[in-house]
Amino acid sequence: MSLDYVRIFDTTLRDGEQSPGASLTSAEKLEIARQLARLGVDIIEAGFPAASPDDLEGVKQIAQEVGNPSYGTLAAAFPNAASSAARVPIIAGLARANKNDIDKAWEAVKHAKYPRIHTFLATSDIHLKYKLKMSREEVVERVREMVSYARSLCDDVEFSPEDAGRSDPEYLLDVLEAAIQAGATTLNIPDTVGYTTPQEFGALIKGLIENTPGADKVIWSVHCHDDLGLATANTLAGVTNGARQVEVTINGIGERAGNTSLEEVVMALHTRPALYGLQHGIDTTQIARASRMVSNFTGIPVQPNKAIVGANAFAHEAGIHQDGMLKNNMTYEIMKPETVGVNASRLVLGKHSGRHALKARFVELGYNLSDDEIDQAFARFKELADKKKVITDADLEALVSDEIASLNELYSLDGMQVVCGTMGMPTATVRLKDPEGKQHTIAAIGTGPVDAVYKAIDAIVNCPNTLLEFNIHAVTEGIDALGQVTVRIQGKELQTRMDVQRELERTRTFGGYGADTDTIVASAKAYLAALNKLLIAVQAQENVASSEAALMA
Amino acid sequence: MSLDYVRIFDTTLRDGEQSPGASLTSAEKLEIARQLARLGVDIIEAGFPAASPDDLEGVKQIAQEVGNPSYGTLAAAFPNAASSAARVPIIAGLARANKNDIDKAWEAVKHAKYPRIHTFLATSDIHLKYKLKMSREEVVERVREMVSYARSLCDDVEFSPEDAGRSDPEYLLDVLEAAIQAGATTLNIPDTVGYTTPQEFGALIKGLIENTPGADKVIWSVHCHDDLGLATANTLAGVTNGARQVEVTINGIGERAGNTSLEEVVMALHTRPALYGLQHGIDTTQIARASRMVSNFTGIPVQPNKAIVGANAFAHEAGIHQDGMLKNNMTYEIMKPETVGVNASRLVLGKHSGRHALKARFVELGYNLSDDEIDQAFARFKELADKKKVITDADLEALVSDEIASLNELYSLDGMQVVCGTMGMPTATVRLKDPEGKQHTIAAIGTGPVDAVYKAIDAIVNCPNTLLEFNIHAVTEGIDALGQVTVRIQGKELQTRMDVQRELERTRTFGGYGADTDTIVASAKAYLAALNKLLIAVQAQENVASSEAALMA
Repeated sequence: MSLDYVRIFDTTLRDGEQSPGASLTSAEKLEIARQLARLGVDIIEAGFPAASPDDLEGVKQIAQEVGNPSYGTLAAAFPNAASSAARVPIIAGLARANKNDIDKAWEAVKHAKYPRIHTFLATSDIHLKYKLKMSREEVVERVREMVSYARSLCDDVEFSPEDAGRSDPEYLLDVLEAAIQAGATTLNIPDTVGYTTPQEFGALIKGLIENTPGADKVIWSVHCHDDLGLATANTLAGVTNGARQVEVTINGIGERAGNTSLEEVVMALHTRPALYGLQHGIDTTQIARASRMVSNFTGIPVQPNKAIVGANAFAHEAGIHQDGMLKNNMTYEIMKPETVGVNASRLVLGKHSGRHALKARFVELGYNLSDDEIDQAFARFKELADKKKVITDADLEALVSDEIASLNELYSLDGMQVVCGTMGMPTATVRLKDPEGKQHTIAAIGTGPVDAVYKAIDAIVNCPNTLLEFNIHAVTEGIDALGQVTVRIQGKELQTRMDVQRELERTRTFGGYGADTDTIVASAKAYLAALNKLLIAVQAQENVASSEAALMA
Repeated sequence: MSLDYVRIFDTTLRDGEQSPGASLTSAEKLEIARQLARLGVDIIEAGFPAASPDDLEGVKQIAQEVGNPSYGTLAAAFPNAASSAARVPIIAGLARANKNDIDKAWEAVKHAKYPRIHTFLATSDIHLKYKLKMSREEVVERVREMVSYARSLCDDVEFSPEDAGRSDPEYLLDVLEAAIQAGATTLNIPDTVGYTTPQEFGALIKGLIENTPGADKVIWSVHCHDDLGLATANTLAGVTNGARQVEVTINGIGERAGNTSLEEVVMALHTRPALYGLQHGIDTTQIARASRMVSNFTGIPVQPNKAIVGANAFAHEAGIHQDGMLKNNMTYEIMKPETVGVNASRLVLGKHSGRHALKARFVELGYNLSDDEIDQAFARFKELADKKKVITDADLEALVSDEIASLNELYSLDGMQVVCGTMGMPTATVRLKDPEGKQHTIAAIGTGPVDAVYKAIDAIVNCPNTLLEFNIHAVTEGIDALGQVTVRIQGKELQTRMDVQRELERTRTFGGYGADTDTIVASAKAYLAALNKLLIAVQAQENVASSEAALMA
């Protein structure tokens, strides 16, 4: 690969999924991984296999399918993605610097054509003292041992010194040299807390590359956070100073203010080729779709004034009556909407469109649906086409998102009706099917129609929780559009999961998504989707507890 | 003022209001200006007085009230804002480089204690050729003349060379020198299209300050846009290289990807004092409230992973079970939520709270309500307290936003009821009062409850329009919270307004806001608020047409 090529390492499925409430199902992760492959990312960090058996299974599934050349056949449907169709992304799994984590990561990623193990260890004194309780020498030794061990399994090993920004620079050189000697192929420098500025971070990368013995044997990578709004600038300062891999997420999601946005870094390289003089493998026309998919599945909205993927990012085109004097669009426009896939051809379907046309459109949109799924989607499409004259790609994407959200249903919505208005006493009647298929019907009164529906559902499901977030937005222009609802809940008896990087327990929250022309129905679906996720987590926790109890007995 | 002091020039009300659909009423602009004064910004760019008589009046109102020391008395209610209470912000008005615009700007801002006229002219060859049809010499002459003229009216004159980034650097020096000689006190360098990188932009500012004769007599300013996600980094590169004024907006709103975010630049200066070594006058604890107010009034949501003001920006604190090993919060946190006013003391009111307690709380929140307004707000507060156990500050802010949104009502909501659910046929019955106070009641069927309500309203109001955007979100945690709805519409017969900077006509869109525990009722209110704005614009256009017709006759 050319010296001027910047590898795009997407960590939407790992660091991005750390966003509160983003928790994705395996089906959603797989669908996003497929889109990342179409987008042409070089490396997909698919998860943290040691976190739980589910996480391991999710990464394995992505390694098997998206990490293998046979997947390329689907990409043939995308004329624009010819370059990425030929390529198969590297599938990476994260692992702490211990044998168990590395074994689990390898077990998950080894199914990919190009697997990678990504291991990390903190190198700042504050972490050594309080978190690791290890001496500097012990850390160097551990890095040497574990990178070596990872290399004994896998040819492609990435190492990250956590909290590099606050580590003693001299000591950092020792750690990185040890990692190179032990066989690391990529060294990634994180700005874990989003504290540095472009000048500082650029100088850090330059210094490390100049002073680490053996630096020319590895690819240098940067991983930035956006706490001060500087992640994109810091990442670009990294590549200007020699980094040739950038760790990014779609829409810049991630905990706190999030990670670096893939779309901003890629479009800066793309829009300013003379300045950066660097190549990348991204099919930029897939950016808008990747953005919509990640937003739908995680329930994390994108603000209209977000660079590149916000609804207004290119809006200055719409509704302007050029006065004839400005001949050149480029007077006020530095990118074309088509370049990032906004306003791409939107074949419109209607009520007379057949199953075949729908299937063809799904393939063009990149959804890999089985015949059963096509049947279900077709039934829902017909239902929607009865209510709405034209069905756009965005509507179809919402349908599929809703379908995927309802895959692992315990309780499902069987029917509902709501009365509300200014006279007070909003009332909902809800009928659910329970896991055994039995019907339950209950009426409830609330402060508003959504509150009434949720109270009725609660009375049936009986799984106490707190609603943390609730959002409705319309998919497309016009109020007859599908309403999309995302909610986020937290169990009353807190579910936790290990934050493996931080080595602390975090409260789990559960996101749900629903789409319907009736926003109140969409709200019910979204709440049920989140509740089903919570119920599964509660059951898993109970299973662990009872098997532990059995072992004790 | 110290050489190390960076002036914060807020242009939320001018460049921020260029965002599609942001169109604010005069009451909303005044309320935001009050909050900007509490925030401690040094300069409020209040609008473009020559754009329309309404714009002139709006700027004048802000100059009279917020631009005068008597306003400081209100700020006494804010113990934390002591520094800003003592200061009175400069009120600026934008003007093209012609006498009429400058006269209008002066007419509006002269009522402030510290008025400023901000005039601009493009300096790139492409603009000279296609837009201005002027020679380079003519532009220099015009700048000299108009800056001189502005100085004959006002001691404080800012000049911006539009499209500076693409202007011939040698020529730019001539223009800037002429502006200094003519008496400009601030020179502002815009990156109009958001195209530059921090290194380039920093070098540009350095070069201009080093090479413009008389550079030491003026304050240098930077004005960046976020098209590539680099606005904050570019602005900071500007101050690192000598700029001492930054032009910013709350939440980074503005057309396309928006302007530089006030909160990001301020918190970078604040969090890294040793690096920048610069002072500012912002009371950072007012940032969160300013962000919420601008989002509510403009209807432009803030994404959860937005730096500083996103809902998740500090979320990593919540729900973490520290495992005891990490003694120091600063291990993963570079700012405290309290610093920007998140989680600030939230006095909670309930159904037994009296009118006095409510009034006291409004004053503490910084709302300047008349007795009549307090009466109305108290009635609505009681209504809400019946439905919801605790009323938080966020609920009160939503109430006031809703109140302000319904100030210039032509049609008002008198009552409604809705039936919807999975059986199809969502039906709404709506009763409106028209401008004469007459009641109209109509029922309509839609694809969903909101569609049905909007169809019923349309049947009464009969003002054809297209719904461009529709968003609902919950104000606070818990589904019994107030639902907040923002919509954006566009008239079927397009309303336009002059984009004075670009000198072209733009289609106007109208935003509306509504809050209610019943989201469907909130949707109706929001739609009516937007419709009322559209109706007023249609009437204004008809008045102009008929007075023109009268003149012709």
